[in-house]
This record gives sequence, C-alpha cells and structure tokens, in this order.
Amino acid sequence: MASSVTSTSAPASKDRSAQPFDRSTLEQTLTKRFFYAPAFSLYGGVAGLYDYGPPGTALQTNIISQWRQHFVLEEDMLELDCTIMTPAEVLRTSGHVEKFADWMCKDLKTGDIFRADHLVEAVLEARLIGDQQARDAESGTTSVSAETQVKEDDSKAKKKKKKGKVVAVKLDDAVKAEYSSTLAQIDNYSGSELGEIIQKYGIKAPETGNDVSPPVEFNLMFESSIGPTGHLKGYLRPETAQGQFLNFKRLLEFNNDRMPFASAQIGKSFRNEISPRSGLLRVREFTMAEIEHFVDPDNKTHPGFARVRDTTLRLLPASVQLGGKTEVTEMSIGEAVDQGIVDNETLGYFLARIHQFLIKIGINGSRLRFRQHMKNEMAHYACDCWDAEIHTSYGWIECVGCADRSAYDLTVHAAKTKEKLVVREALPEPRVTDRTVVEVNKKVFGPRLKKSAKVVEDALMAMSEAELESLRKALDQADGVEVKGTDGQGYKVDKEMVEVKRITVTEHVREYTPNVIEPSFGIGRILYALLEHAWWVRAGSEARGVLSFPIAVAPVKCLVQPLSNHSSFTPLVQEMASLLRSSGIPAKVDTSSASVGKAYARNDELGTSLAVTVDFQSVKDRTVTLRERDSTEQVRESVEEVVKILGSLVRGEKEWSDIRAEYPLFTQQATE
Amino acid sequence: MASSVTSTSAPASKDRSAQPFDRSTLEQTLTKRFFYAPAFSLYGGVAGLYDYGPPGTALQTNIISQWRQHFVLEEDMLELDCTIMTPAEVLRTSGHVEKFADWMCKDLKTGDIFRADHLVEAVLEARLIGDQQARDAESGTTSVSAETQVKEDDSKAKKKKKKGKVVAVKLDDAVKAEYSSTLAQIDNYSGSELGEIIQKYGIKAPETGNDVSPPVEFNLMFESSIGPTGHLKGYLRPETAQGQFLNFKRLLEFNNDRMPFASAQIGKSFRNEISPRSGLLRVREFTMAEIEHFVDPDNKTHPGFARVRDTTLRLLPASVQLGGKTEVTEMSIGEAVDQGIVDNETLGYFLARIHQFLIKIGINGSRLRFRQHMKNEMAHYACDCWDAEIHTSYGWIECVGCADRSAYDLTVHAAKTKEKLVVREALPEPRVTDRTVVEVNKKVFGPRLKKSAKVVEDALMAMSEAELESLRKALDQADGVEVKGTDGQGYKVDKEMVEVKRITVTEHVREYTPNVIEPSFGIGRILYALLEHAWWVRAGSEARGVLSFPIAVAPVKCLVQPLSNHSSFTPLVQEMASLLRSSGIPAKVDTSSASVGKAYARNDELGTSLAVTVDFQSVKDRTVTLRERDSTEQVRESVEEVVKILGSLVRGEKEWSDIRAEYPLFTQQATE
Repeated sequence: MASSVTSTSAPASKDRSAQPFDRSTLEQTLTKRFFYAPAFSLYGGVAGLYDYGPPGTALQTNIISQWRQHFVLEEDMLELDCTIMTPAEVLRTSGHVEKFADWMCKDLKTGDIFRADHLVEAVLEARLIGDQQARDAESGTTSVSAETQVKEDDSKAKKKKKKGKVVAVKLDDAVKAEYSSTLAQIDNYSGSELGEIIQKYGIKAPETGNDVSPPVEFNLMFESSIGPTGHLKGYLRPETAQGQFLNFKRLLEFNNDRMPFASAQIGKSFRNEISPRSGLLRVREFTMAEIEHFVDPDNKTHPGFARVRDTTLRLLPASVQLGGKTEVTEMSIGEAVDQGIVDNETLGYFLARIHQFLIKIGINGSRLRFRQHMKNEMAHYACDCWDAEIHTSYGWIECVGCADRSAYDLTVHAAKTKEKLVVREALPEPRVTDRTVVEVNKKVFGPRLKKSAKVVEDALMAMSEAELESLRKALDQADGVEVKGTDGQGYKVDKEMVEVKRITVTEHVREYTPNVIEPSFGIGRILYALLEHAWWVRAGSEARGVLSFPIAVAPVKCLVQPLSNHSSFTPLVQEMASLLRSSGIPAKVDTSSASVGKAYARNDELGTSLAVTVDFQSVKDRTVTLRERDSTEQVRESVEEVVKILGSLVRGEKEWSDIRAEYPLFTQQATE
Repeated sequence: MASSVTSTSAPASKDRSAQPFDRSTLEQTLTKRFFYAPAFSLYGGVAGLYDYGPPGTALQTNIISQWRQHFVLEEDMLELDCTIMTPAEVLRTSGHVEKFADWMCKDLKTGDIFRADHLVEAVLEARLIGDQQARDAESGTTSVSAETQVKEDDSKAKKKKKKGKVVAVKLDDAVKAEYSSTLAQIDNYSGSELGEIIQKYGIKAPETGNDVSPPVEFNLMFESSIGPTGHLKGYLRPETAQGQFLNFKRLLEFNNDRMPFASAQIGKSFRNEISPRSGLLRVREFTMAEIEHFVDPDNKTHPGFARVRDTTLRLLPASVQLGGKTEVTEMSIGEAVDQGIVDNETLGYFLARIHQFLIKIGINGSRLRFRQHMKNEMAHYACDCWDAEIHTSYGWIECVGCADRSAYDLTVHAAKTKEKLVVREALPEPRVTDRTVVEVNKKVFGPRLKKSAKVVEDALMAMSEAELESLRKALDQADGVEVKGTDGQGYKVDKEMVEVKRITVTEHVREYTPNVIEPSFGIGRILYALLEHAWWVRAGSEARGVLSFPIAVAPVKCLVQPLSNHSSFTPLVQEMASLLRSSGIPAKVDTSSASVGKAYARNDELGTSLAVTVDFQSVKDRTVTLRERDSTEQVRESVEEVVKILGSLVRGEKEWSDIRAEYPLFTQQATE
C-alpha cells in the first residue's frame, strides 16, 4: 500500500502547465482563504509567528493524521507527548545551551540587529546584481529586475529594509568569483569566519552604511523561569527529541526490552530566530514530528528493508557537493546502500519511507531530493545526516532531516545523571575474552599516597587497555613510574602499589548504548511546500486558482450545496449531509446565497475535492450532480449512488478516472 | 447519534463493584504501563510537568479525535491553530497581566513559598483532624487515620512536607464551625481576606512554625522575551482563547459574514502554578480544547436546541450553593432554560453537548455535575459560568468550564487597537430613531480653548444621551457651563461654542459586538477522571486491574498474538494483522514470549478492547479466538469472520452483547 512511488494526485497536466507559478498570487489566495496569517497583526504583528485558519488547520491535521498512520501505526512506534518547558540543566547536558546558537551583528550606531550570514548574503548578492546591471549597461542589454532577484523577506523584515541595496557597480572578475564562492558556502562558516568576510569585503549595515559589530553568538532558545522562586531556569524545547531520550528506560521496558524500536512525537517546538523570513519556512514556533529509532550500533540492518529496496530516490551525496556540483543521482535505495552511498539499511529504510510519505500527501517527486550534509553544517549531535529537500519558489528547502545521532544523547544524559541508559542483552552463548586490568594494593597504595590516593586510582581506572599495557611494561622495567592523577599532578607508583595483569572474562550479557536514527519533520515547511506544489491557475476568462490536494489531506473532502437558497432544496441538502456524515465522509454544507459557479471557484481555492449540488431536477428525481475539482467533470446519479461513489473516493479505493469510466459524464448543466 | 445520554461502555457492574477504589493501585498501574510519568525524573523531576507514554498519548489522541468529531465536524466550527508565544501587550489588554495571579506567602525565615489558600486549607484541615482525634480520645473511639484525611500532595510537594501537621488538640465548638465555614468558602477569598485569616487564626509555616509574609500576588504566566533585542516581552498563553478573539475579523469573513458561528482550538497552554499538586489535575503545561461561540447579544437562541432539550443534566446552581447546600437537581436542559436556571438556549445547548461528549468517551454520568460559579470565583472576563465537574478520588474536579465572556474580550482589544471588532448586519427594514447629539462650532471652539480643545471635545463626544440632555438644559439656563475635559480639568463652554440638539437618524445597518459563550475543556483532567472511572479490579486469585475504556477511545482496539513463539503461528499472525490494517482496524501485534494469560492481563491494564489469539487449532482450520476485555468471554470463528466482527465493533455498529447473541461462546481453551 505504501510502496507507490509516483503521485496519483496530479490533475490534468496540460492545464497545470498553462501558467507560470506566481508566488504573490498564491499568497493572496492563502490570505484571502485564511490558510494562515501573521499572528497578532491587530497589534502590529511579530515576525516569525503565524496563526493557521480553518483550511490551514484542517490541512495540518490531515497531514499529521497521515503521518501518524504511515509511521506510528504502520511501524508500531511508541508515541509520546512530552513537556515543552524544559529545565536548563537538561539542555545544558544535551549541548543546546552552549551550541544551539546563530551569529548576529549589530549596527554600531542604530543598534539594529542582523543575522550575520543573512547580512553577508544580502550584501554580496546585491553587489553581484549591481555588477550584472553594470555589465548589461555596458553591453546594452536589459537586466532582469534587481528587486525580483534579491531574496524576498517577510513583511516585518521588509519594513526594516534589511535587503541589500543594489547599485550598478562592475566588479573585478576575480572578486565576482570570490563572492559567488562565498555565497555557495554560506551555511558552512563559523562566527569568526563570517567576521573575517565582513572585514575583508567591507560589509556595512545595508540601510545606514554604518559599521557592524563582529559576530557574536545568540542562543536560539526562548528562556523562562519555572515556579515562583525565579531560581529554576527553563527553556522552551528547540526539538521534541530530548523528551524521548529522557524516557528511554521507560520506553525500552514498555517494549518488553526488545530492540530495535522507535519512539515518536508530534508537537510544538520553539526557536527564537534572529530575523525570521520566508513566511512559514523560518518561524519561531512550529510543529515537528520526530522519530527516534533506537538501534544496535553493531547491527543497523532493518527487517523492513526488503519492502522498500526498490524505491527510487534522487540523491545528492556530500562527496558530489564537495566537488562543487549539485546534480542528483537517481537510484534505488537498495543500490545506494549496497554501494555505501547511504551508510546502512536503517538509514536507507527511513529515507525511503520519508519519500513515500511525502509523495502520498502530494509533494511532486521531481521536486524532491535527498541531500547529505557536509561535515561542517551538521548539528552538534549528528554524525551523518540526509535532508529531504523540497523545491519551492524560495529554492531547495530542508523539510525533513534524517540524522544519525549515534549514541551522543543517551551517553551525555547517562554521564550527567549517573543513570545507565543502556540495553542489556543475554548473549546467545557466553563470550570469553582476555583483558588487561589494573588492581590497587590498598594496604600500600592508600598510606603512601594519602589524600591523593583517590585522584591516582581514578586515573588508573580510566586507562585504556593500551595505556595499561604500556604501564605494565614501564613497571617491569623501572622501579617507579610517574602517573598523572585526575588532578593533573604527577604521582609515582610502583609494583608494590599496583598490579597490572591479564585476565580472562566470561560475559553472559552484552551491554550497549543504542545508536539513534532520527527522522525529523518540519510540518509547517512541508505544508507550505505542498501548497506551492498543489497550486495552479485554471485557464479561462479570468485567473482562477486551484489547490489540487490529494483527497487524503484535502481540508474538506466534499461540499454539499443547493443551486440557490430556494427553500425547496433544503430537505435534500440536509438529507445528503446526514447520509454522508453517517457514512463517515466529512462534508461541509454551504447554504450561503453565492451562485454555484462562485461556490465552485471558492472551493477550488480551498482545495475541496468534490462538490454535490442539489438542483430543481434533484427535487423531482433524487439525483444530484457530483463535480470533481481538478477536471471540473461531473456525473449525475441518485443520492444513494453518489454517497457510494464518495465513500470509495474518500477511502482511496477509487480515483476519479475510475468513476468517469463507470458512469456517464453529465455535461448539460452549465452552472460554471 | 450524539444524543444518547447513558454510557454503553460499562462492563458487568457486579464485577466492578467487587472491590473499593484504591488510588495507589491505579497509580502504580499507570506508571508501570507508562500512561504518564513525571517529566525530567532523570534530573530529579519538576513539579507539575508530566510526559505521556504510549498508552496515555494514544488515549489523549483518541479523546481529541472524538472531540473534533463531536464539536468541530458535527457543528461545523472554524478550527484554528494559533501561536503560543504571545506579546505582553495582548495579555495586558486582555487583563491577564494584571489579574491572572494567585496569592503566595513566604516563610519569613526559610524563604519557602506557599500558595496562600492552600496553606490556610492545609493548616485548618489539620487542626480539624486534630480536634476529631482529641474528641475521639475523650470518648474512646478510634479515629480514622489522619494521614488519609489530609489532602495528598504530589511527590515533589511531599518532599517539601507542606502538609499540615496533625496534633490532637480539641477546639471550641465555635472555632470548629468557623474553620469549616472558612474551608467551604476557600475559593472565594481575596488576597487581603486570606491575609486576615492567616493573622486571625495564627497560621504559620507548617514544618518550621515560622511566621509567613502577608499574601502577595504571583502572576501565573511564564514570561520570556521574543527576538534578539530583549525588548519585546512575551508570555506563554494561559488559554487558547485570545488567539481566537484576535482572529475574529478573519473568521467572520471566512464564515461569509454570517452569525452566529463558533471557532475552536486544541493546543497547549501554560500556567506557572505556585505549588502544583494532585497529579494531572493541576499542572504547569496542559492541553486545552476551547470553543468560542460568537452570538448576537440580543438573540441567544440556538438552532440546534430542540435536538438536545430532553437531555437530562445534574445541575448545581449558584443560588443553591449560596444557601450552603450542594444537592444537585436533575432536570432536562429544556426545563432548565425554560425556568431561567440556565440563562439562555446557547449556554444550555453547550452544557448538553458537553454532557453528551463526556458520556460518549466513558465518563460515569452519575459522577458528573454542572456547577454554576458564584460571583466571586469567576474569572475576570466572565459574567456567568457553569463548570462540568467530574467526581474523582480528589473530590469534584472542574474539567470543562462553560463561561459567558459577554463582549469583554472583543471590546478591550478593539478599544486598545482602534480596530472595529463588530458584526454589521443589514436591518430587514431601516430603523428610525431620535437621538441627542452634540456639535462643536469649530470657528469659536478651537480659538477659545486653544490646545485644550481636544480634551474637551473628546469629553463631549463620550457623553451619554442623558448627560447631553442635562448639558442642553444647563446651556439654556446659564451663560456658560463647566465641562470636565478628559484631562480631569474643568472648562467653560457656552452656546456659541457647542450646540446640543435632537436629531432623527435612519439606520440601515445594525452594528454590534458579539457575545462569546466559551466551553473550555481541560483534556488532561478529563483524561485522568476517565482513568479513575474506567478502572476496576477483577475478582480472582490476585489483584488484576482492568481499564474499561469505550472502544472509541481505547489506546489499542485489538491485540493480535500467537499462543506461543512457536514459528508455525507467524504466518497467520502476520496475515491477520495485515487484514485488520487493510480494513482500517488499528491492531497491535505482540509476539513477545509472554504466556497468553500474562498478555491478557497486561492488555487489560492497558485497556485494550479485544484480543485475537492464533493457536494450534488456527493453523489447522484458520479459526482464531476473539476475547472481549470486560467479560473475558471468547468466540472462535474463521479469520475472515473475526475481521468482520472486529470491524463492526470498532466502527461502533455493534456491541459485544450483539456478538455473543450471534455467535456461540467458546469456553474450551483455558488459557487464562
């Protein structure tokens, strides 16, 4: 069921390609139809905070419900709902207090704040456009509008005019190449590197021309305090993952101590972005869906891999990017794992399942790729990461990260809390190994070293096998050997005080810290990308937008409406609605006095899949028309038959092409 | 469908009443089965923060899904998903910055913090118990254990030992009566009244005996700051309602300007409680589901009222409570509205719908009542409020508030932002009214009053008709009249400067600010109450808990398991699971090596409704057993027939009593 790779939701493609994509038209429609809107706009708004209106909320709910079906239920994952408000200590241990930060610069005179990489990007991009204008002017060509090339900011940022100012100045060819190369690697720079770039290229605050401060770190977590004392610092979680790691022991027990298993969580996370932009793509509060798959580090095979191995993905490995290229390779995930392009089956399994999910909800497969992170851009906890990137009018956008967090999180929390976060597995047969160990002769060791005994013993116990072997040789050869205690001081030990020996150990249980593969979904980004992919404009006398969602995620599956607000239609409209409801088909009754044509147009923009209309004929013979959104085709059948058809479409048993093959198309009623 | 008033989920009652309810047994089971657990317990825990484990999350998801079905879909509400992080200005306007607070006292020596009402409650309750002990000792009776009578705190609070210390000291009869009366009104006191009580009764910090500070206000909102400057203060929302009010204009437009309509929102809210206690009942982060029903203040009839008017509710009006009584009156909501006990149809409609919802998800109707708030206990925005209270081992708990917020919120936001938040309705025929107005003669008014002209004009424009009539008379009688400007100063005006006159106005449009009826659900509280109501212990050789959830909210509908981990069972178990999945029946396969009896017991505690077992007979003839949780009855039918039975049960078309009437019970296999 879940293995189909191609989208079945695409409407007649000749229609859709008729007009080029225009973001502003889409945005106007999304605002008019209240998919989402800037939050607190009554109070002037706050950048990076959005409210979802009724169709946006329904779309989001349906995407989440599909996600839960596709991952939690089909894969039998252990879903959690953990706390958002998190004590600082937890996030200090996880590394977020220290490392979850962006670099910011201040305009030294006005105090305006910029995200350092965005500032460099804006200024260099503006200079490159200015260069192009100057070159065009020289050669007499007309340049493309500078305005449309500079990355668009959201409304709040626009007001602050943080965009780079374009002045037509020609650059040296070498400088131009340097700028391009800098821009290509913009995600890769550290704070000090960004500072050097700002110095080197004389980058100033775009609007004022003032100098900017060197980049300083700004932690992206929202801070608060828990309880009335004011002494317990807390942060709003920046990811849902930590709650899952902290519950690892309970989860393992719940799973009857069996490995591997996955937990999952859907919920809000928060990032106090320096300068949010690009609409829903970079926001301060967002819904995530995260999976933590706990796996034996020595065995990353996956029992379900055979089911997905033929799934074809578009891959962009790190090695290709380091060569300065961005061409994707299409190959089956089976091949990719066999060739070592994707590290292991578990990682590969999730890439394939992510792909299937995105296609199922309506993402265009030809605008989806999996890009591997380069070393410098990975989060502090990750050792490998592939992003599912979706192409939008803002470029390629990371919508799902699939990271191998190794044993990082469980290890740091265990070390901090002294709680073992491990799996204990009975070995099929006892494992006998030889091992070098050190023993302390308490009678001599303590009295000789006195209060330093502890720091020396700790240092000895922390030695690796190789270090112990060296120590053994040294002790054999000399009368005393200097050992560095955990306090950093040197202490002399000899053979009377310590014995280093080789012993044989028989183990019946294997103890290990699991590795974690983490597919992490940004629901808002996926939702926005889907809106762009589903949007097209129907050819006709005027611009009429359509949102062609697959029926599974469409905010409303079916509209039921009377031809007009004539009272004779009411009983049948009510009956139809109640029949649909009792058949479990979500329908919306619209008895507003709008014309049928207007109602169709409104519902095309809302992405409503199907529409039933009750007209004068219906009152006579209990037949109604059923219209399909993408083709605008209609059939006319009895109320009972239409309920049956709708049920088969909503449950995904049939598609519209099946219906039009089974029933005659109805073309008489020219209501549009 | 939604009008059934009695629960259909109750298991055989003779079994359930066999053992008295014991909270600690239930709590142990909930922890063991990971319904929920204290958050961050690896780090010592934080009071009032909980994580939901897999069965708790599934239960919550199913309750929310039923809620969405019952309210949003059946009532065609406009669902929103708004921002949690809220700029301070919004909550200043709504009154939360000033008024959303509790009273706290400090131990003057240790700095320990108490919620003032909890402190009074704990100390006076302890004294009353001590009094009872002293009286019992006098008369030679054995007292009930003091420990069990003092309200139990959660583990964190327990550690701090905030409970009142019980000492057997007899009180005067008059003092005893005063204490009881104080406790009965504990929710009704202001901070200064609590301070007086603390003084009067010599209340000290229970553990140290130290004096406590007079009560000071502590705002219950979590504070943070938005963006990198640190200048934009924000709070985590304490309710989801404000987001709905701020979007009123968009919602009205989305609803094609038609009234009445309701918006709804499900999401997290936050309250920084002073001393959280009582487990899930008083927490710092919680899921709410809120409805804002916008209605014409002049017409609070409800089109759906006829459908619910026969629903019988257990009501406890404010008038009864003010008489010191708590007896509920059972009556139909129709009667209650007719008699004016419930103010209007819309309020009554929602009380009935709330009742239906709670019964549907498994709340015991005889432990549910609707209590009207007394004037002093209402939130600052409410003018009337009925709580759906559910009886638990902690007493009667407010789980749903149904408040009439009147026009409070829309009015304050409109006044603050100067945006009209109103409905404009074309009048059926123009309305002609006479009205007294004031006009300023700009030529004289401005030059005479100079820079004070504005404050005087504003004051004149704000006058009521009655005030204007007085002004007119005064102007007619005297040469000049003193008017108080908006700056509080007096200014002289005369007939040359202003004219007060009677005019006739013809209105074609009526403009009004809607009233809001707000049913607000605490999902965590409902979930906890449901756990208590669903819990019972099966009579048998050992204590065995069962959670009898209705199938619609059960975390898992069906368990599929082999008799043992013998490999011959695997194919049929897999086939069964995949058949169920493709029929849309959520099932969980358990192939752990536990015995069937143990698996049944585990799943009874998880509230799993049904279990399919594959045994040796199954491999021969493709029949499997199907066991029902509450009765432990089984039938044995073919795989296909069992899928059919399961489908009808899960979709709610049939109940177990129908199945046992249709199929022979299977009693052979003694696997339990």
